[in-house]
Amino acid sequence: MGDVTVTVCTTCRRADVDPEAPRPGSVLLAALTEAGLPEGVRIRGTECLSACTRGCSMVLSGGDTRWTYIYGDLSPDDHVDDILAGVAAYAATDDGLVPWRQRPVIFRKQSIARIPPADTPSQE
Amino acid sequence: MGDVTVTVCTTCRRADVDPEAPRPGSVLLAALTEAGLPEGVRIRGTECLSACTRGCSMVLSGGDTRWTYIYGDLSPDDHVDDILAGVAAYAATDDGLVPWRQRPVIFRKQSIARIPPADTPSQE
Repeated sequence: MGDVTVTVCTTCRRADVDPEAPRPGSVLLAALTEAGLPEGVRIRGTECLSACTRGCSMVLSGGDTRWTYIYGDLSPDDHVDDILAGVAAYAATDDGLVPWRQRPVIFRKQSIARIPPADTPSQE
Repeated sequence: MGDVTVTVCTTCRRADVDPEAPRPGSVLLAALTEAGLPEGVRIRGTECLSACTRGCSMVLSGGDTRWTYIYGDLSPDDHVDDILAGVAAYAATDDGLVPWRQRPVIFRKQSIARIPPADTPSQE
């Protein structure tokens, strides 16, 4: 299994914040970086995930064998601990599929989409 | 650059269709397969992309160097030709970034999210 990457959109903003303030995505990226992610987990910013109506948004991905998840409506004030717990649970799997009840509520309720690993066969 | 994959959710449905009819995602998968995708493009179905409110949905991905795109609100009746054109334009790129005006309108307007290639450096 490959390394896990957290990709945070640094551009998007929530509708309820001051447009002149630092973008919540940048604040979230800094907060997660400072809090410290599990060993082997990389974090990066990206300028646009095209999920602008659901910002802050982030992607959780991890090599060729794991499902990829996209989450939205995240808050740098409220969700850092839950994100860290969810990332740790994901990183501990081979396929990215954390049992439903072990996922943080924000990951259960604020998923925008998920993508199967590249080598998953067709299901019709 | 790796092979391009089109992943169609076969489970989700549009709000306006008969719940007893074949799922539009299955119909879309069959229509794209029958129409014939560009050489080197693989198509597969998947049982859930967790983009249920935006069905039909599909993912366009292609190896380690291309951006990944997720599209929603697709119709097997109206969008097959546009999807094929958009997939061909994407497959002709190294990085998945088709110039804006060369993208089909449905790809411009119905993007749910996009994900940078795994090796893209952090932008902060």
